[in-house]
Parts: sequence; C-alpha cells; structure tokens
Amino acid sequence: MSVFRIGIAGLGVVGAETARQILTKQDRLSKRAGKNLKIIAVSARDRLKDRGFKLEEVFFYKDPLKLVEHDEIDVIIELIGGESGIAFDLCRKALQAGKHVVTANKAMIAHHGLSLSKLAEENDVTIQFEAAVAGGIPAVKILREGLAGNKIDTVAGILNGTCNYILSKMTSSQSTFQDVLEEAQQKGFAEADPSFDIDGVDAAHKLAILSSIAFKQKIKFSSLSISGIRHVSAIDVMYAGKLGFSLKLLGIARRDSTAEITMALIPSEEQLASVNGALNAVSYRGNPVESSICIGPGAGAGPTSSAVLADLIDVATGLANFAYGSPVETLSEQKLDENKLSQQCYYLRIAVTDRPGVLSEISAILRDYELSVASMIQNSHSNDGSVFLVLTTHKCTKKIIETAVSKISLSEHVLDSPMLIPIYDSGSFG
Amino acid sequence: MSVFRIGIAGLGVVGAETARQILTKQDRLSKRAGKNLKIIAVSARDRLKDRGFKLEEVFFYKDPLKLVEHDEIDVIIELIGGESGIAFDLCRKALQAGKHVVTANKAMIAHHGLSLSKLAEENDVTIQFEAAVAGGIPAVKILREGLAGNKIDTVAGILNGTCNYILSKMTSSQSTFQDVLEEAQQKGFAEADPSFDIDGVDAAHKLAILSSIAFKQKIKFSSLSISGIRHVSAIDVMYAGKLGFSLKLLGIARRDSTAEITMALIPSEEQLASVNGALNAVSYRGNPVESSICIGPGAGAGPTSSAVLADLIDVATGLANFAYGSPVETLSEQKLDENKLSQQCYYLRIAVTDRPGVLSEISAILRDYELSVASMIQNSHSNDGSVFLVLTTHKCTKKIIETAVSKISLSEHVLDSPMLIPIYDSGSFG
Repeated sequence: MSVFRIGIAGLGVVGAETARQILTKQDRLSKRAGKNLKIIAVSARDRLKDRGFKLEEVFFYKDPLKLVEHDEIDVIIELIGGESGIAFDLCRKALQAGKHVVTANKAMIAHHGLSLSKLAEENDVTIQFEAAVAGGIPAVKILREGLAGNKIDTVAGILNGTCNYILSKMTSSQSTFQDVLEEAQQKGFAEADPSFDIDGVDAAHKLAILSSIAFKQKIKFSSLSISGIRHVSAIDVMYAGKLGFSLKLLGIARRDSTAEITMALIPSEEQLASVNGALNAVSYRGNPVESSICIGPGAGAGPTSSAVLADLIDVATGLANFAYGSPVETLSEQKLDENKLSQQCYYLRIAVTDRPGVLSEISAILRDYELSVASMIQNSHSNDGSVFLVLTTHKCTKKIIETAVSKISLSEHVLDSPMLIPIYDSGSFG
Repeated sequence: MSVFRIGIAGLGVVGAETARQILTKQDRLSKRAGKNLKIIAVSARDRLKDRGFKLEEVFFYKDPLKLVEHDEIDVIIELIGGESGIAFDLCRKALQAGKHVVTANKAMIAHHGLSLSKLAEENDVTIQFEAAVAGGIPAVKILREGLAGNKIDTVAGILNGTCNYILSKMTSSQSTFQDVLEEAQQKGFAEADPSFDIDGVDAAHKLAILSSIAFKQKIKFSSLSISGIRHVSAIDVMYAGKLGFSLKLLGIARRDSTAEITMALIPSEEQLASVNGALNAVSYRGNPVESSICIGPGAGAGPTSSAVLADLIDVATGLANFAYGSPVETLSEQKLDENKLSQQCYYLRIAVTDRPGVLSEISAILRDYELSVASMIQNSHSNDGSVFLVLTTHKCTKKIIETAVSKISLSEHVLDSPMLIPIYDSGSFG
C-alpha cells in the first residue's frame, strides 16, 4: 500500500481528536483509504501539552507555514480556524505548493471558499470542507453528490448548536436568555464571547457554504440577512409553545432570494421543530427528490473529526473533486430576484396599555394593510396596567407586515417595540 | 465536452422519470457531470406507450440484453427489478462487457451485490445502487463516504414506506390493518400483492445492503431475522400510544449481531417515532460521529430517479468507485457473536379470563424469570369475560422473555397467543 502523508495544523479539540483517530485507528482508516495514512508533521503552539496520544517520529512546528515547505506532505489538514489570518495564508500556500487541503474552517470557506477552490483547480489539487458545516451530518456531500441530479430550491436548517441549546433550554425550563446563556457557558456549550453564535454569524457561514453548493451560484457572504437570538424573550418562547410552535434560529436559503438567518416559529409537528438541544439539522427541497432532512450533532470533537476523516479518505482515494461539485468558473453569479416576493405567516407580540379601544386601534391598522389575523391571544390584566396582545397572521409579504408594525409602534398605547417573528412550515421551504 | 452514453433498461415509473429527467434537463445534468449525458438506447416492453417524452434517435429494444451488445454504451441503468432473472443476467453481462451499471434493484443487490461488485472490479468498471435504499435519502453514500472514517456500530431505520403508511394510518384513524391496507392499495401506496412489503422482505433487502456497507462485512441476506406487520392489531397500536410509544416496523442492524426487521415500540419523543406516512428514515451510530438520522421519501418516481441520477453523475465524473467503499475482498466475513446478548425492554399484551388470581399467576411467572415490570395497564371488564393485560418490562434478553411468554401462554386463563413487541429507544441503538 502506498503511503499518504498528512500534516495537521492546529491541535485544539478537533485537531487532537483527528490526530488521535488517525494514530489509534490507523489500520482501519488506511484499509478504507486504500493507502497507508501517516501523520508526518504537525503544527501547534505547545508541543508538550498532554493530548492523550504520543507524537513520535513526527515533525513538530510552531509555525504552520513550515508544513507547506515539507515536500513529502500530500495533504494539510487545517484546524486552526479564523476567516483570514494564518489559516487562510496556510491554505493558499498549501494549494499553491500542490498539496491537498482539508479544513473545518467555516468562516474562511464562507468568505474565501470559491477563490480557494479555484486555486485548488489551478494547482490540480483539491480543498475539502465537510467539517465546516454540521460535523455529524455529511451535508456538503449530500448536497454536492447525493443530490447532484436535482435542481435544489431550498436549503433550510438549524445550523448553530449553541443557539438551539439555548432556545430548547429556555423552552423546557422557562428560563431567561441570560440565565441559560450563563449556564451554557459554564458547561462549555457556549464560548466566553458568544457573539459569533448568538448573533447568527456562525450559522450564516454554514448557510452561505450550503447555498453555493445547492444553487451552484457564487453566493456572497455579505448578501446574507443575519439576525440572532440575543433579543429573544422568555415571553415569546412561552407564547410560541401556547400557539403550537417551537421557536428556533433558522437558516433558510431559497434559490434567487436573500438567504437569511432568523428566529422563526415552526409548527411543532414539523421534524425541524423537534430538533432540540445542541443538535443541528439540514433540510433540502428539490426536484426530483422532493424533500429530506438530516439531523445530527453539529459540533464537538467526535462529529467534526468524523467529517475531517471522511474528506481525508476521499482525498486519499482520489474521490475528492471539485468542492462545489463543478469547477468554480461554471457556477453562476448570485441572483437575487427582487420580484420573487415570498409570503409567509407572522407572529406578532405587542405590549399595550390595558385600556378600551386599543385592540380596535391595532385591528384597524392591520385591516388597512389587508393583514388578516389567524389567531390571537390577549393575556389577563397585569398589575402595571399593561397587557400583551399576541397574534399570528395569514400569509403576507415581509414589506407589508413591517410597514404595518412600524405604524402600530407609533400608537401611544404601544409600550415597547413589537416583536415580529416569521412562521415557517414545510410549505414555506418550497 | 465528451459524450457519456447511456442505455436504460426498463421504462416503468422510475425508468420513465429517469429518462424524462435526462432528456429535459440535459444541460444542467451534463454541466454537473462534466460530460454530455446522452441516452442512446432503451429497452422496454412497449415502444409506443405514451410516457410524456419522445425517444428520438434512440435505439429501442424489447430484449434488454441487446443493450450489452451496443459497443458505444458507457453505462447501463437497470430499472427492470427482480432478484435474479433478466435483471441479474443483464447486470452481469454488462459488467463483463466493460460497461458501468447503475441500478435501483434492491432484491438483486441484497442477494448478489457483493458478487456483482467483485465482477465490476475485475472488469475495471463500477456498479452503483444508491436508488436501492430509500431513494430520497443518499443513505449508501452517507454510510460509504460521508461516514467513512467511522466504526459504525448500529444502523437502524424505517425502511418500508408502505408499512409505515399503514401503521401511521392505523394510529391516526384507529382503523384495522385490513382496512388500511385496502385503502393503501386503492391509492396505489401498496401493491396488489403486498407481501414483499408487509412481510418485511423489502425492508430486509435495504437493511442487508446498508449493513454490508456499514460494517464492511459480507452480510448474507439469509442471516437476517425478518418479520412484518401482517399480524399487527389495532389494539396494540392503541396501547402503544397510551404508553407513550409509536409502533413502527423497524430495521435494526448491530455490528456482529443478527440484523432484524421487526415491529417495535419507539418512545414518542424519539425522532424515529415521528417519521410518519410513507416516509423512510435511516439512523446511524458510530465512533467518532456519535449518531445522526436522515428522513425522506423512500420510494416514488422522483426520489428514486434522484438517486439514479446521483449515481449516474458519479459514474460519469469518475467519482464512483467501490460500491461497498472498499474492494469486496477486503470486506470481512460476517460475524455473529452469540455471546453479545443485547438486552432490551419489551411490550407484552395478554388476553386473559377476567377472574381473580390470573394477575397473580402471571406475575409469579415473570418473577420466576426475574423479569421486572416497568408499567402495566389492565383494561376494564368486557362483556365476554376477557380482559387485556398490557405491560412493559425493564431490560431483559430476548431468550428469557420468550421463555417466560411461552410459559404464560400455557396457562388455562390465557385466551390467545400473547403479543410480544420489543421496545427500542436511542439507547438500544448503541
């Protein structure tokens, strides 16, 4: 069996697990790859840190770029992370030096994946990034190869485990966002600086990557509409449940529309609604496949290294090809069809003064915009003289409802900014 | 762009849809494949049947074996079906003639997949069969490539849409098996002769295929334990619901154990429990990926042709390789470790005479076998002097519970064969 020589850049949680898997399961993985998989060099900050395995007869570098100079290395596994900086530098130079790259770096791929993939083509090597999206779900391969014969119209998913954990926990324990976030940070489910997760950026990275592959378009990360869960209120989580919905941070990309990361209410009988805890989910709709959904762990050392190893084996066996399924030059420019106005139902919560005539005033505004109410809850009178008016609408455009809501918020009886959340059911994904 | 020449054998529902897709979406599919995909010959019984598209400048044969003689054909898409017979003959001869094969034929692959794959290797071509398992879920590719770095321990799933439709409908409408089956036949969801579906054979074909790929073992179809839903009673569907379970026909394969198709109760909070209607689901558990589940349509022209097209594109781009992930000779012989006794919980329903002392007699038998009861329901007295005793057990081996049940059925107070159904939760899949 010929030898396939590996350099690993970054021995954090995922890097260490990947190295451990290759070292301790070398026989099985090599048999699967048809080549003798051998780590010949690694790069990390601290050589002596105990990672649970021994790096013997392996070159060790503090500077990851040294891996590129290593003539024998066939593939560099980049697990440093970061949109630009050293990781991007390493990947570019590795590809230019004719080395394959396997990476879990979603920020880098969301921003530079197309240019890196082009660079790989020019140098007759490949860059693979299954681990950049939902590690435990082979989402990239499913879209790129498993559904290659389809015209995909929609990709939707729960793409950030931290947000899903927080929202699930707020639902099950009726806690506030802040309390659950702190608990998640203590347990290690959320970062000390959680903004990439809770502001939807991490989910947006994954959605951008999936969109390019699904639609065969050069999706620009800057085109995404991104919002997170930082302002979610326990009240909305509670009302969502009362109305038969789950509140989720959803990524949704429709062909020729702006891809968005948004809080959404999902009917509780939908599969996506029952994806709880730190799980991720990716669903697809296309022709002729109709639709399917995959659910699994999105992060963590095990699931992420599973994705890295799959790419490594594909690269070693020669089954890895164009990262987006076709040469980058064959992908279309991104299209945004402004006339393709999608309509959907909405959830609207308004804090109002508890006085006669308020409901009639708000109803009149909704009527003026031809917005029709599907259901409504008004809670019992509170001590401070305010009540919540919670309603769901029938389908309407985003523009109409937003205009109506800004008019509503001008009313002297409205005490706070109304909360507007779209409702997505599987029909919306079409 | 070079031309990739296709012969299609069989223009039934799936064959016609596959041909229609290739003909009407030729540009997109060819771009994706990097080759000009061209149907140059087809074989079917009736040339003149209206299939919604025109076969112009295409050779038409009644005898599918004529496709093999066609020197120009690069790949034969076999959509005739059947375990042996003409389909098997065609595939063997096609591979021997150096033509690739793409097939949706689960019966043939479950029985002859390993020998066909070996034949393909010997002739330096490939045979691909994504469409043989759950068309809308790229289950073969996920297991073979997406999870290639894992040691898979369990594959479980809902693998027959007809059975799942019948069980879901029995649950939602509280109907009998016979009534729902007849309705399904009228709607075209079940065959006129439904035995392959309702006796679990179709699901077993798919499970055998997935098991070989997952465990990298030569799984013999004859080794599977297969039972179906023919004897399901509306009473058990009802009690399952009362106890917080869904009744499903489950395929479950554990490494080194007998793979089985069996009715099973699944806790309603599990993802598998909420897979309703004609949907299929496949779940995996392995190291390091942990576990994931994919849900989608398992049959029908669209989903199945999606899988056929994916294989076709893989073959055309040169990304199709060993059908089981490695050369057949590298797969292990099937192992059945009889000492690996898995324990699980059980549901047991016993029709007994409504007399004092019956419960005590049955309880004593359970105690003698050290079987501990987790929950019990005894329904109210009936007119005919019989009652149902329904209980669930804590974990025990199959052998122990079956012995206890045969002892129970000897009691003069037991009126009918007790119904014993295993309970599977995600813990059981490990």
